[in-house]
Amino acid sequence: MTTVKVVRDILEANDRLAAENRRRFDEAGVHVVNLMSAPGAGKTTLLERTIAGLGRELRIGVVEGDIQGSQDAERIERAGAVAVQINTNGACHLDANMVASAVAELDLASLDLVVVENVGNLVCPAEFKVGEHAKAMILSLPEGDDKPAKYPLMFHESRVLLINKMDLAPHVSADPERIERDARAINPQIEVFRVSASTGEGLEGWYDWLRALHRA
Amino acid sequence: MTTVKVVRDILEANDRLAAENRRRFDEAGVHVVNLMSAPGAGKTTLLERTIAGLGRELRIGVVEGDIQGSQDAERIERAGAVAVQINTNGACHLDANMVASAVAELDLASLDLVVVENVGNLVCPAEFKVGEHAKAMILSLPEGDDKPAKYPLMFHESRVLLINKMDLAPHVSADPERIERDARAINPQIEVFRVSASTGEGLEGWYDWLRALHRA
Repeated sequence: MTTVKVVRDILEANDRLAAENRRRFDEAGVHVVNLMSAPGAGKTTLLERTIAGLGRELRIGVVEGDIQGSQDAERIERAGAVAVQINTNGACHLDANMVASAVAELDLASLDLVVVENVGNLVCPAEFKVGEHAKAMILSLPEGDDKPAKYPLMFHESRVLLINKMDLAPHVSADPERIERDARAINPQIEVFRVSASTGEGLEGWYDWLRALHRA
Repeated sequence: MTTVKVVRDILEANDRLAAENRRRFDEAGVHVVNLMSAPGAGKTTLLERTIAGLGRELRIGVVEGDIQGSQDAERIERAGAVAVQINTNGACHLDANMVASAVAELDLASLDLVVVENVGNLVCPAEFKVGEHAKAMILSLPEGDDKPAKYPLMFHESRVLLINKMDLAPHVSADPERIERDARAINPQIEVFRVSASTGEGLEGWYDWLRALHRA
């Protein structure tokens, strides 16, 4: 029972810090997306594409969450956006406190949109708010069409599902229809875009969704 | 500082339970592999193949770890092996206590090899021993060749790395040479097999490694 209490306390403390982050974002007029996926689903590649596709319309900043290293933040900066790296030193998700520290390094007044790229993990990131306006997730097609049933919380919490690596559809057995159907069974409001971040296929819907978030 | 202590206590308590599990396995003459990967890397497909390829030589049991659901255990039973499902109810890894409960459902005396299929996650499963004789991991090629640098603990802890979905090599940019080189830089003793669990390509080395573990 003690363990349960500790976990609940951690989540409550996190929720309070997330609400503070959110107030800071709202005051600065910045919209924030918490982007989640399994390792290797294509979060950074999607962001590189998004910076190329939307970077002239929206001023984009990225908070990069990784266990260690700064390869992803370097990729984002090469793509032309400002990036702050968080190293979680073993933790399998970002929390509101980590994001508060990272955001202190950003000049929020000079940004329209901040994407928080979470640690690659389909489980815990969905439990920890970081102050975002919306959660978005990527499922890459080669991961298989059984993932909504196996990791329902992430599908439940996300406002957007990007089914990525659609260019591999001819070579894998996973069925994007089944992914979409099972995701909607968990979360009827979820917006689904079938994309390939590496070829650029299908990204216009995602860009429109980000534009609408920015106008909201 | 309290948090650090709680985490250390949890890991120490887990290590004690893992040692008890290990004694139970050794008394029964069963060898146990803790199989880890990101979601969708192909753990269950590898096990289906392994049961088909080795099931007449080695009596194989599987402990299936999932957040929820029992699809994977059903797949294992259809493949012809005995399976026990653990639902972690939100926890992103198995621990020694969960595995002890599952193992109580298995008739260890009737088995040569037990594979514990961990929750799909490249982070926390590497921190929690479950009583295994060896850890093995799968990295699927579409996840990308930057994963050893980003998730080093799992590569450090694993005795075997299966680079899976090699059939997709012509269609993805990830370089298996780089994966192998970076994995060996972290863990010089790691054994690497390039395989496709879906086509069966390259599995003989993995089978030989399991045979050698069984004879050890």
